[in-house]
Amino acid sequence: MNNSDYVPEVTSSIGEVAEQSQTLLQEERRDFLKRGVSLSVGAAAAMGGAMSVSAEGFKPDPANLPPHIAKWGKSWGRDANTHPYGIPSKYEANVVRRIVPWLTADQKATVVFTPWQDIEGTVTPNGLHFVRTHGGVVDINPLEWRLMIHGRVDRPVILTLEDLKRYPSVTRQHFFSCPANSAMESRGPGLDSVQATHGMLSCSVYTGVELKTILEDIGLKEGAKWMFSEGSDPASVGRSVPIEKVLDDAMLVYAMNGEALRPENGYPVRLLLPGWEGVLQTKWLRRLKFDDKAWWVREENTKYTELLPDGHAKMFNWVFESDSVITTPCPERDWQGMKAGPMKIAGIAWSGRGKVEHVDVTLDGGKTWKEATITSEKLPKSVIRFEFLFDWDGKPMMVGSRSTDETGYTQPTEQELLEQKGTEFIYHRNAVQLWEVSANGEVHNVQIRNA
Amino acid sequence: MNNSDYVPEVTSSIGEVAEQSQTLLQEERRDFLKRGVSLSVGAAAAMGGAMSVSAEGFKPDPANLPPHIAKWGKSWGRDANTHPYGIPSKYEANVVRRIVPWLTADQKATVVFTPWQDIEGTVTPNGLHFVRTHGGVVDINPLEWRLMIHGRVDRPVILTLEDLKRYPSVTRQHFFSCPANSAMESRGPGLDSVQATHGMLSCSVYTGVELKTILEDIGLKEGAKWMFSEGSDPASVGRSVPIEKVLDDAMLVYAMNGEALRPENGYPVRLLLPGWEGVLQTKWLRRLKFDDKAWWVREENTKYTELLPDGHAKMFNWVFESDSVITTPCPERDWQGMKAGPMKIAGIAWSGRGKVEHVDVTLDGGKTWKEATITSEKLPKSVIRFEFLFDWDGKPMMVGSRSTDETGYTQPTEQELLEQKGTEFIYHRNAVQLWEVSANGEVHNVQIRNA
Repeated sequence: MNNSDYVPEVTSSIGEVAEQSQTLLQEERRDFLKRGVSLSVGAAAAMGGAMSVSAEGFKPDPANLPPHIAKWGKSWGRDANTHPYGIPSKYEANVVRRIVPWLTADQKATVVFTPWQDIEGTVTPNGLHFVRTHGGVVDINPLEWRLMIHGRVDRPVILTLEDLKRYPSVTRQHFFSCPANSAMESRGPGLDSVQATHGMLSCSVYTGVELKTILEDIGLKEGAKWMFSEGSDPASVGRSVPIEKVLDDAMLVYAMNGEALRPENGYPVRLLLPGWEGVLQTKWLRRLKFDDKAWWVREENTKYTELLPDGHAKMFNWVFESDSVITTPCPERDWQGMKAGPMKIAGIAWSGRGKVEHVDVTLDGGKTWKEATITSEKLPKSVIRFEFLFDWDGKPMMVGSRSTDETGYTQPTEQELLEQKGTEFIYHRNAVQLWEVSANGEVHNVQIRNA
Repeated sequence: MNNSDYVPEVTSSIGEVAEQSQTLLQEERRDFLKRGVSLSVGAAAAMGGAMSVSAEGFKPDPANLPPHIAKWGKSWGRDANTHPYGIPSKYEANVVRRIVPWLTADQKATVVFTPWQDIEGTVTPNGLHFVRTHGGVVDINPLEWRLMIHGRVDRPVILTLEDLKRYPSVTRQHFFSCPANSAMESRGPGLDSVQATHGMLSCSVYTGVELKTILEDIGLKEGAKWMFSEGSDPASVGRSVPIEKVLDDAMLVYAMNGEALRPENGYPVRLLLPGWEGVLQTKWLRRLKFDDKAWWVREENTKYTELLPDGHAKMFNWVFESDSVITTPCPERDWQGMKAGPMKIAGIAWSGRGKVEHVDVTLDGGKTWKEATITSEKLPKSVIRFEFLFDWDGKPMMVGSRSTDETGYTQPTEQELLEQKGTEFIYHRNAVQLWEVSANGEVHNVQIRNA
């Protein structure tokens, strides 16, 4: 290899291409897609399941690059230092969290939903993390923040944020969800969207201190069976947590996805109980007390209980069972304009019990199932990604996914869940989410159609 | 358990605490920290290395919560739906990327540095990802974007973004770095900062399509030994990539940390070569060509080469060897005001060869080393976290870290690197970064002191 191998054709291609005048840009986008991409199922099978994309109708050489692309790079770009804290592309301005206005009476107690139709991969950017507030967002000065740990402990303490950060820390990826996720499927046409049905779920890489590390230091007294977590929430959403969870994997987290928690997520410190209901994971934490019994506070008595078929209410439903949802296609990201042929279904799965072991996909509303491919790390109590390649015959379908976790538990169908739990329960609705795909590619929420 | 166990004392504590008037807030913060937290090394040893924090001088009960904390939650918080795309706390406004103004002649070709002194955990938020531009930031409409793949392939194609997303995808966490990271340590007092010495490094969870998936589909012709990647960069920073890397783990990525790439990172699609120099990982990708030899373009001839002691320049230095740096303490996050006693050192490590196997820490400038604890998943070609607990005698120290990867390679000291590579090389400076800690807790970059 030496410099005489230099091939000027390539680096001068910008000029070459600019001379060309092709018609690609004038073509309607969907028409381009339909014409330009044909998916060869035979080849896909030969590749062991990978999808095949061919380019019929094109002669790809530099002369075929559309003229507008040839223009890129002909002038200086923007300065890179104008946003010390960067922002998304202007073309992604519609990738935002949304509220469902009628859901709550005012905007102090509301929900802001993660747009899973637009999320790629497993973690949610902090700017798109779902938010459930009961009394608005509290702004706390981290230098003023204090955490008192007392009750049945040998050495009660008041910690500053700097104290907390001097304990050994851990960094782990976990999903985070409200138990009301998927609770409103049959309540109105505004919920014909994966953002509404599954947007009370997010996933982050958290950094903080395991509670057992602190408790090994300050000592638990005999009879410390429960922990009460108190935040600085105007609605006082405190909760009782059994000591077994505290000593298993509970964390006091101060960072998510590399930076400080956001105020809406509990800045500067929140409780994290991986795989458990979000409502227990107290934001703006200021006090932890240990005692021999639960406190039976409002959020444990009047809400976050499960009304059983016999009229009793079951309390303390903490853990999220295995769950999943298809995000491509979905009502917001449909297949209108697509023709029969190879297609890719993609989605997310998670379990509060540990790792998701496998995910199945149905195309016929749950009659038959086929295994999907997991395309991300199988991290425990985390969102993972799956994909499923198949040959669409162009007829209406009913697509859905079900996950099985490492305990062997498999996500139920809607019918199975209703048979098991009755019709009055609200929380922990982890039934298979079915999307109806019509022949023209429109996608709708089946639960709404049935309502 | 029944409702008669309800303990009203806890939920009414906000009122109780508000009655109290303690003096915590009036105390100077560092004085509080010094007085309030004493670290018991004996206890730490008994805990198997965990740090012990006791609370001498306090009687933590609700009456001891500072009065300003008691006020939190007494009024409604902010509405949660005012930021559809959320932003950090106002108290984190100084956590931003920074430029080193004298580094480049203008702001089209510049570097914006990741603030590792403020990053917790492993991934960097997209808003804090470092940026190196050669001709400014290009804004591309994703509907107009096209990628041509041609040259020695059986079936050349022009892909739309939608085409690309229909291939099977993968989601993986990888570090991303400029080969000039750490290149400027001895060049001026403005670099007495970990943001300057190691801020050309970031780490993200990427989503995209492996190039081998596409090449299995369209077919590589015999003699396809190199790939040329062309972006829409005004500076035309194209590069030649050997086919072995292309077929190993190269990806075309369209998302990082759950959302679309940012324009400054190559939106809508960039090349990703995990563990390799950032400059090869073409942004705003628009063309890939396969041929039997490298192209020897400008960035391969005149830059990104390594000047050897004998005057020859070594080309094609692609892979980052194992590296690490201590982020706590560092010049920006020092230990001023801290006294002798147990301390926690924390930092990051990475290797382009695969997994970091272990990290050692020195307190005496490299004379002796002790193994640190890895506190995150050991993901390959990713930033990982380490921590080291020790008992500081209050005397000056010279702290540093060195990582060893799964190939057995250990990061060299500055002296070893200079002996091996001479004094004229710029890129791939992965020597042990030493921070000098004075008795009063100030922290400085040793390389600058030696300059």
